[in-house]
Amino acid sequence: MQMIKKPDKYFDVDPWLVIESGFDPKRQRISESIFTLANEHMCVRGYFEEGYSGDCLLGSYFNQLYDYRDLKYPMTMNGFVGKGGCVPNAVDWLYTRIELDGEQLDLSNSAFSDFRRVTNMKDATLTREFVWRAKSGKRLKLIFTRFLNIRTTIGGYQKILFEPLNFSGQIKLVSGLDFNTEYEIAGGFDYNKESGADRDGVADLNYWLHDKSLREGGLFAIQAKTKNTNTSLFSSFRLELGRETEMETVEGEKFIGCAFTLGLKENEPVEMKKTVLNYWGAEESGADTWQNGMIAAQSPLTYDSAYEEHAAAWQRYWDMMDIEIEGDPEIQQGVRFCSFMCLMNYHGESESRNCMCKLGGEVYQGWNFWDTEIYCQRMYLFMDPEIAKKLIMYRYHFLPEALEEGVRLGCEGARYPFGTVTGRDDTGAWQHCDLEIHQNAAIFYSIWHYAHVTGDKALLYNEGIEILLQMCRCMAGLGGWSPKRGDFGFYGVMGPDEFHMMVNNNCYTNVLGQKMFRYTTEVLNEMRECAPKRYEEAVSKTGVTPSETREWLRMADHMRVNRDEATGVYEQHDGYFDLPHIDLSRLPIEQIPIYKNWPYVKIFRFNMLKQPDFLNLLYFFSTDYSKEEKKANYEFYEARTVHESSMSPALHSILAAELGKLDDAYAFLQYAACQDIANYNRNTDQGLHSTASAGVWASVVSGFGGLRTDADVLTLNPAIPPQWESYAFRLFYRDSRIEVRVTREGVDVRLICGPPVDVNIWGETRTVGEEVRLTRV
Amino acid sequence: MQMIKKPDKYFDVDPWLVIESGFDPKRQRISESIFTLANEHMCVRGYFEEGYSGDCLLGSYFNQLYDYRDLKYPMTMNGFVGKGGCVPNAVDWLYTRIELDGEQLDLSNSAFSDFRRVTNMKDATLTREFVWRAKSGKRLKLIFTRFLNIRTTIGGYQKILFEPLNFSGQIKLVSGLDFNTEYEIAGGFDYNKESGADRDGVADLNYWLHDKSLREGGLFAIQAKTKNTNTSLFSSFRLELGRETEMETVEGEKFIGCAFTLGLKENEPVEMKKTVLNYWGAEESGADTWQNGMIAAQSPLTYDSAYEEHAAAWQRYWDMMDIEIEGDPEIQQGVRFCSFMCLMNYHGESESRNCMCKLGGEVYQGWNFWDTEIYCQRMYLFMDPEIAKKLIMYRYHFLPEALEEGVRLGCEGARYPFGTVTGRDDTGAWQHCDLEIHQNAAIFYSIWHYAHVTGDKALLYNEGIEILLQMCRCMAGLGGWSPKRGDFGFYGVMGPDEFHMMVNNNCYTNVLGQKMFRYTTEVLNEMRECAPKRYEEAVSKTGVTPSETREWLRMADHMRVNRDEATGVYEQHDGYFDLPHIDLSRLPIEQIPIYKNWPYVKIFRFNMLKQPDFLNLLYFFSTDYSKEEKKANYEFYEARTVHESSMSPALHSILAAELGKLDDAYAFLQYAACQDIANYNRNTDQGLHSTASAGVWASVVSGFGGLRTDADVLTLNPAIPPQWESYAFRLFYRDSRIEVRVTREGVDVRLICGPPVDVNIWGETRTVGEEVRLTRV
Repeated sequence: MQMIKKPDKYFDVDPWLVIESGFDPKRQRISESIFTLANEHMCVRGYFEEGYSGDCLLGSYFNQLYDYRDLKYPMTMNGFVGKGGCVPNAVDWLYTRIELDGEQLDLSNSAFSDFRRVTNMKDATLTREFVWRAKSGKRLKLIFTRFLNIRTTIGGYQKILFEPLNFSGQIKLVSGLDFNTEYEIAGGFDYNKESGADRDGVADLNYWLHDKSLREGGLFAIQAKTKNTNTSLFSSFRLELGRETEMETVEGEKFIGCAFTLGLKENEPVEMKKTVLNYWGAEESGADTWQNGMIAAQSPLTYDSAYEEHAAAWQRYWDMMDIEIEGDPEIQQGVRFCSFMCLMNYHGESESRNCMCKLGGEVYQGWNFWDTEIYCQRMYLFMDPEIAKKLIMYRYHFLPEALEEGVRLGCEGARYPFGTVTGRDDTGAWQHCDLEIHQNAAIFYSIWHYAHVTGDKALLYNEGIEILLQMCRCMAGLGGWSPKRGDFGFYGVMGPDEFHMMVNNNCYTNVLGQKMFRYTTEVLNEMRECAPKRYEEAVSKTGVTPSETREWLRMADHMRVNRDEATGVYEQHDGYFDLPHIDLSRLPIEQIPIYKNWPYVKIFRFNMLKQPDFLNLLYFFSTDYSKEEKKANYEFYEARTVHESSMSPALHSILAAELGKLDDAYAFLQYAACQDIANYNRNTDQGLHSTASAGVWASVVSGFGGLRTDADVLTLNPAIPPQWESYAFRLFYRDSRIEVRVTREGVDVRLICGPPVDVNIWGETRTVGEEVRLTRV
Repeated sequence: MQMIKKPDKYFDVDPWLVIESGFDPKRQRISESIFTLANEHMCVRGYFEEGYSGDCLLGSYFNQLYDYRDLKYPMTMNGFVGKGGCVPNAVDWLYTRIELDGEQLDLSNSAFSDFRRVTNMKDATLTREFVWRAKSGKRLKLIFTRFLNIRTTIGGYQKILFEPLNFSGQIKLVSGLDFNTEYEIAGGFDYNKESGADRDGVADLNYWLHDKSLREGGLFAIQAKTKNTNTSLFSSFRLELGRETEMETVEGEKFIGCAFTLGLKENEPVEMKKTVLNYWGAEESGADTWQNGMIAAQSPLTYDSAYEEHAAAWQRYWDMMDIEIEGDPEIQQGVRFCSFMCLMNYHGESESRNCMCKLGGEVYQGWNFWDTEIYCQRMYLFMDPEIAKKLIMYRYHFLPEALEEGVRLGCEGARYPFGTVTGRDDTGAWQHCDLEIHQNAAIFYSIWHYAHVTGDKALLYNEGIEILLQMCRCMAGLGGWSPKRGDFGFYGVMGPDEFHMMVNNNCYTNVLGQKMFRYTTEVLNEMRECAPKRYEEAVSKTGVTPSETREWLRMADHMRVNRDEATGVYEQHDGYFDLPHIDLSRLPIEQIPIYKNWPYVKIFRFNMLKQPDFLNLLYFFSTDYSKEEKKANYEFYEARTVHESSMSPALHSILAAELGKLDDAYAFLQYAACQDIANYNRNTDQGLHSTASAGVWASVVSGFGGLRTDADVLTLNPAIPPQWESYAFRLFYRDSRIEVRVTREGVDVRLICGPPVDVNIWGETRTVGEEVRLTRV
C-alpha cells in the first residue's frame, strides 16, 4: 500500500470535540479552517473576531452568493471563459473590538494565557477562552462563543463573557458589521504560493459597494452589493447585555456598529450576546432585500431561544447520520468531524444551494464539482432522499446554463460545468473545465442511483429525463468514431484522474457514457409505455428523435472499453499501459505534493495517478465485476496512485475492505478521516475538504459495512478492523430507517421506523422486521 | 489537394513594387503591415506619420529590445512563467504634424485625392503621395518617403515634399520624436478579437519612462527607458530644409520636437529631410547609451549619402538572394516580397538578434520560434553561411537561459524555449511552450545541417558541441521508457502540428531526437580523435560522461517510430490513426480559420492537422525515405491538413514538386507567396508572416528547383510549372556561388565565383566549372 503523506497532529483527541490547547500563530490559518462553522446558508472561519494583526484569513462566505472575477490568460483562445463566478469574502458580522486601559486586545500583540479553542460538534458551537494579561497588570478572562443557527439559517450568534480576575473597572467595546473584508483569491489561485492566493497586481480585494445602513433603537443594519453582479446582502444585529447601556453609533466606510463602555466587577462574569441576521436572495423574485431583511430583523429569536432550536436540529441530524465507533477515539473524532463538515456544508434546506468543494476557504471560490454527485449526494440519499433530490434539482435549475456551455464548447445538448457556482464554468482552468466532460457522467450516475434506490419515478420522468436527454445529446456530439477500429469513444478528454490531461477513451468516462446512453433510452421507452403524457412532454421539450436514440444505442454498443485479457485490468485510457513507470515507493517525500513540487507538465508524462478513476466503477457497479477483476484492478492502480485528490483514499478504503485487506482499508480510512484534522495534505489552511469528507462516511458504511446499492436489494458485507470494538450507523432506505451495529461477534440490523426492509447480509437476503442479529462465522 | 483559404487581392501587381492605389480606411491595418519597413535593427509599420485619427496601429519596434509583461492565469500551476519578454511599441521617430490655414492634416478627416502608397522592394523605400484639399480650398501635394538604412542600421530617414498646386503661402510643421506610443498587445493576445489585441483591463499601454532630452542647435535628442527592464533607447533627429528656418523647441511628456513655418510658392516643390538615429544596447557592456547616442548623432551621413549606401547594400543582398521568375508577375511579386521580408527582418548584422516571427506586428511580441532554424537559417545558409552561423551563435549566447529553462521544467541540460526574446520562454502559453520540446530538435537540425553543408568544424567543435551535449542531456531527461514495449520515446509532448496537444511519441520529435543522440555522440567521438583539446574542453565544460552517451545511444537505438507496414505511412503520434476523421472537403468555409471558429479544445479531438510535422523529415532527410514512402505519406497527411500554420503550404509545395504534382506545387506556392499580399489568413493586419516567407524561397529553390542537401553532394532536380517561362536563383555552396536558371527547355548552372562545385542534377553528378547546360529529356 502506497501512502506517502504523513499526518501533522496538533488538535486534541475527543469523540465530540475538536480542541486546540494553547495558541500557535504559525498554525492560525489551519486552525481558522478547522474551527469553521457553517449552516448551509452561511459560513465563517474560526477567526478572532476581536481583531488580529497576525497572519490570518478573516473569512465569511455565503453559499451561492457570487460575484465575478476577470479571468486572464497569456493567450486567450476561442471559447475560453472570460469571467468566473466566485463566492467573495463577505460581511464580518462577528466584528468586535475590546479595549482595556487604552490597550486594544489583539492576540498578536497582547499577553495572554490559558488559551483554548474548541468546536463542539454535537451542537456546532465554537468557544474560545483565554486570560488577557493587560499591560496595566489587569487580568481579564474572556470566553467567546458563536454558532450559526442551522434551523433558521439567516441567524448568526455570538456571546462574549468578560470576567475580571484581579480588578474592577471599565472596558470599552465596539460591536459591528463590517463589509471591509478582503477576498484574497481575487487574483487567482497559485499552487506555488503557500497561502494559495495570488494577490499580486490585484488592485482591490474587496468585492462590496456600500448600499445603505441604519440604526433604529437597538437595531443596527447595513446592506452592501457585490461589485459586478449587484447582489445585495443585508446584515443586522442587536446586542443583549442584561443591563441598560448607552450605545454610540459608529459609522464608517462599509461599516456600522456601536461603541459602549461596560463596567465590570472582580470575579463577576458579564455576558454580551449578539444576534445577527444575514439575508440575501430576494431580488430575483422581485422583492426588496432591504425590506425583507428589516422584516427578518424583527424576529423574536433571542440568543438563547435560537440556540435551543439550533441544538435540537443538530440532534436530529446526528440521529440520522452519526457513525459511532467504539475503541478508536482518534478515528471516531475524524469520522465525526467529516460528517460534521458535510452537515454544515449542506443539509438540503434549499435546492438553489450546493455542496461547496472547500468549506471555509477561498481556493475553490465557492464552486461545486463532480464531488457533489459522486460523494455527497450518494451519502445524503441514505440519510434523507429529499436532500439527495434537491441536489438533482439544483442541476435541473441550471439546465439552461448547461445548454449554453454546450454551445461554448461546440456541441448541442447540456454540458454541465466542471467547477461552478453560476451554472457555467467558473474556474477558467480550461485544461480541466473544458476537457473534463465527466460531470455529465456524474449527474447521470446520481439520477440513475437516486431512481434506483428510491424507486421515485416522479423526478425521473420529469426533470430527470430532460437532463438525461440533453446530456446524451451532448455526449453524442463530444464523442467520435475511430476510423481504425470502428468503435466509439471520447477523444481529447481528461478523466477525474487529472494526472493525464488530454487522453482518448478514458475508461471511466466511456463506461458511464455507455450506461447513460442505454439508461436514458430505456427510461424513455418505459415512459412511452407507462407515462405517455410525460413521454410526450419530454420529447416535445427536448426534440429528441428516434434516430437520435438509435444512434445513442449504437454508440453504447460500440463503446470502447479496453481491458487486458491476461490480467483483467481495464486500461485507464488508450495507451495508459505504455506510459513510463514511476515506482512510488522510491518517490522522495520532498516531492510530495506533486502539484507543488513538479513542473506542471511533467506530471502528465508518467503512469502515476492522482486518483484511479476507473476504480470508482468497481464500487458503483459492484455486480458488473468479478472479485478477481476487482482484486487485479485495485492492486494494479493502487500501486500507481499518489492520492493527490482528497477523494482518493476513501475510495481505496472501500475497495480494500471488500477485498479483505482490512489493514489497508483502515490505513486509508485513517488518512481520509483525519485529512483535515491532521492536515495530511498540508493545505487545510486553504479550507476544509468538505466534499471529500462525504467519502469518509462511505468508507465506514460501504467500506467496512460493505453497503452496495447497484443490485435490486440493499447489500451489506460487514467487516470490522481489529482496532475497533464496534461501530454503528443508520440508513434510510425505501421509507424505512434501519440501524446497523457491527461488533467483533457479528452484526445487528434493527428497524428504527417504517415497513420491514429486505437486506442482503453476507450473501443472504433477510427481511429486517424488528431486528436481525447475525453472528460472524 | 485541400486549400480552403481564399485570397483577398487588393494591391497592384508589379515585379518590384507593392502598390496601394487609393486609400481604404477599413484596410489601414493590413496596409500598415504590408508597408512595413525594417533593417534588422528597427522596424516601422507603414503608418501615417502626420497623425491619423482613424483605426490604425502606429508601430515602431526594435529587434530584441524587450520589456516584460505580467502573465496572468486563472489558476497558476508550478513552473508557469510569471513574466514574459515582449518587444514593446517604441519611439515614433517619424512624428510629423502639418497645418494649413488652421486645419491639421489627418487623412481620417481631411479631404484628399490621388492617394498612392508604394514600397519599392529594390531599394526598400516607402513613398506615399496624395493631394490634400484643404477646407480653405487650397490644394497641397505631399509625397512622403522613408527608408531604414540597411547599412548603418541605426539610421532612419524621412523626406516630405510639399507642392502647393493652387496657392502660395505658409504651412506650419512640427517634427519630433514621440515615446507616447501604445503597446496594444500589453494585455495579451486574444484569438477571438479581430485586432488580436486584448486591451481590456490594461491600465497603461505605454512601456516607456522619460529619461532625458536635449536640443543642441539643429540636433534634437531624447532618451527613454523601458518600465521594467530599464533598457534605454536614445533617439535623435536633424532636419534638412535647404533654407534657414527658425525652429521652436517643443517639449512634452516623453516628446521632443520642433515647430516651424515653411513658406511655399505655387507649383514649387519644397523638401524636408529628417535624419534620425535610434541607438540602444550599450548598457550591458558598461557604456552609456546617451553618450554613445550623442556620438552617433554626429554622423556625417545626410539623407542622400545614407540613401546611397542603403541602396547599394540592398543591391548586394538582392544579387545573393533574388529569385527571378519570367511569365508570372503575380508570383514574381509574391516571391520577391517574401525575400524582401526576410532580408528586412534579419540579414546577419548581429548575432544578438534573431528573426522575429511576425514583422511589423505585436501579436507575437517580437519572439522567435523554431521557424528560425527550420525555415530562415536554412535559407541564409545558401545565401551566406556567415548569416546562418550567427543564428546558431544567437542560441549559443542563450545557452545559460536554456539551462535555466531545463530547471524550470524539471530536467537537466538545455531546454531551448518555444517562443522567446529573452532566452527564456516568453509566451506563457504553457500548453505550447512547455510541451513543444521540438525547439531543441530544430537547433540540432540547424547545427547538423550547417556543419554538413559548410564543412565548418570550428563552430561544431566549440559552441556547437556544447549546445548539442546539453540538449541531449535534456532530451534524455524528458523522454521515458515504455514498460509495455520496452522502447524509448517522448511522452506528453506537442509536435509542431499544434492540433494535437499532449501526445506520446510525436514521430517528428522522436526521429530528430534519435538523430540528435547519434550525431552528438558521433561528433564527440570524432573530436576525441581529431581535436582532443576541444574534446577535453567540451567534456570539462559539460561534465558529459561515457555512461551518459552510451545511454543516449541506447535511447536512439530503441527510439519508437511507428510506421504502418501496409501503407508505409508513419503515424504522427501514438494513436493518431485512431482519431475520428474529418473530411476537409466538407468543412464549411465559415469554420476557417479553425482557431477563431472552433472552441479551442474541440480542435484536438480529430485527425485534422494544422501542419503535418512528419512531412518535414521527408524534405530534410530526403535520402532516408523512398519515393513510395514520400508519396504515401504526402497524400495521407496532405488530405488531413488545414494549413492553419503559415509554414505549411511552403512545405507542401516542396514535396508536391518532388512527387511531380506540379499543379499542387504551384497552388501551394501561390498561397505561400501571396499569403500576406493577398491576406490569405485574414490576419495580415497583425503583422507579416516574416519567417514563413523564408519557406517561399525554399518552395522555389527546393520545390521546383529540387534542391536537397542531406546527401554528400548538392542535389538539384529542376522542374518548371507550365505557368512560367523560366526562373533563376543563386546559391552559395562551399566557397562558391552558382546561378541556376531553369527554362522550359532545360537548366543552366553557372559558376559565379569560387572553385568548381559538384552538383547532382537530375540524378547525375556534374562539376560546375564555368557553366553546365542540360536539356530536359
